Amino acid sequence: MKNKPYLIISNDDGYTAGGINFLIETLRPMANLLVVAPDQPRSGQGCAFTPTAPLRVKLIREEEGLRIYACNGTPVDCVKIAVNELMERQPDLIIGGINHGDNASVNAHYSGTMGVATEAALQGFPSIAFSLCNHSANADFTPLRPYLIDMTFKAIAMGMPPFTCLNINFPNRPKFEGVKICRMAKSRWVNETVRRTHPYAGDYFWLVGECVDLEAEATDTDRWALAHGYVAVTPTTLDVTATGMIDILKGSF
Amino acid sequence: MKNKPYLIISNDDGYTAGGINFLIETLRPMANLLVVAPDQPRSGQGCAFTPTAPLRVKLIREEEGLRIYACNGTPVDCVKIAVNELMERQPDLIIGGINHGDNASVNAHYSGTMGVATEAALQGFPSIAFSLCNHSANADFTPLRPYLIDMTFKAIAMGMPPFTCLNINFPNRPKFEGVKICRMAKSRWVNETVRRTHPYAGDYFWLVGECVDLEAEATDTDRWALAHGYVAVTPTTLDVTATGMIDILKGSF
Repeated sequence: MKNKPYLIISNDDGYTAGGINFLIETLRPMANLLVVAPDQPRSGQGCAFTPTAPLRVKLIREEEGLRIYACNGTPVDCVKIAVNELMERQPDLIIGGINHGDNASVNAHYSGTMGVATEAALQGFPSIAFSLCNHSANADFTPLRPYLIDMTFKAIAMGMPPFTCLNINFPNRPKFEGVKICRMAKSRWVNETVRRTHPYAGDYFWLVGECVDLEAEATDTDRWALAHGYVAVTPTTLDVTATGMIDILKGSF
Repeated sequence: MKNKPYLIISNDDGYTAGGINFLIETLRPMANLLVVAPDQPRSGQGCAFTPTAPLRVKLIREEEGLRIYACNGTPVDCVKIAVNELMERQPDLIIGGINHGDNASVNAHYSGTMGVATEAALQGFPSIAFSLCNHSANADFTPLRPYLIDMTFKAIAMGMPPFTCLNINFPNRPKFEGVKICRMAKSRWVNETVRRTHPYAGDYFWLVGECVDLEAEATDTDRWALAHGYVAVTPTTLDVTATGMIDILKGSF
């Protein structure tokens, strides 16, 4: 198995989720896999890590070319433990996903799946995040199979520039129109809270909401691609300097 | 009090922390403040939010021009509750901090203080994050006072381009050399785990580590500015598209 690529996989839906297990079974014949994933759902964790609580991992499954660990931390914690403690050699690629749900546009900031890819890139490894625009636990991932294989091997072959990763989102449909290389759409979440009242312990809130497009006419965004049946590949940078503002601020701040 | 600016303040160290209370007392004479901050420390939470648990707020203090709420959620949750449920009018500015600890370079990705500024910008409001490079609960914030006032009012006056915010870090010293407008330094955390063994419940890990500069010679970064005694102002974008990769990927992916 020595010539097979070595991949680290994590997610934010937890190690039992359909998406990560579909990814594992898809890539297993052609790669050696180290899976370190949360022991429970950790959606919306972004790049959160755990600075003040002990982290534990539990070996769930071990076979030739495959080890699966559950970790009590966030997606970022899982990558840190994998890289610092569990990996056998430098990975050829680190993959987040497949997420159950859309991580395009501003959702990338909240996404634990993108947390995996971001942390991997911060660690200096090429990385991609896969997400399917279907939140259901029973989402059908089979249409993704050839794309997962093709994109994984292309990403390994081309590598990534430092401090970048790929955010790849699939529309929820049985067949795709093709692949679009996109920019991140500008969108905004609105109506994000609902208030409920406990019988004798006061009010509380649930976070909910709708994501509204702020540039619905643009045809080069990830949201446009997904709405039109394309797989959206959004190259993503971790250097978040707003370069255009530097000169403005130098004159006035 | 109608002509005073209206500011929303949050942080990740919790509403009792020294940093946020120093900020509140500094800005209170010149602004009306809505403070919604975590009810306990929430460092390292990045842009994490809470999709699956009920969120509660508790009014801690209410005076003319000042309301302080504690919230059981993350920094991002605090901003969402403030904007969707608690604010009396559109804020002129949303501020994260003052954080106890350095949020420059790649730390911005993990920072709950930057989570506040990021969420504020995603909501469409101008925002800044203040951090002091001193983790101590007893850190001395007094040298920051004139800068906090000056920068808050400049930020209100100039506003921010959409999908941007400011990440402002102060070196830990009694006097500053001046203010530098910077780009985010490329750095990497290393040696991030230590293993410990419970007497009868196996091994666990603590996340620790050191942040290593990957471009120590560069003089235009936030890490350089801080190391040389300057206040580092890093304009930050939420549009994380790696624009330079789009054409490369179009030909090969």
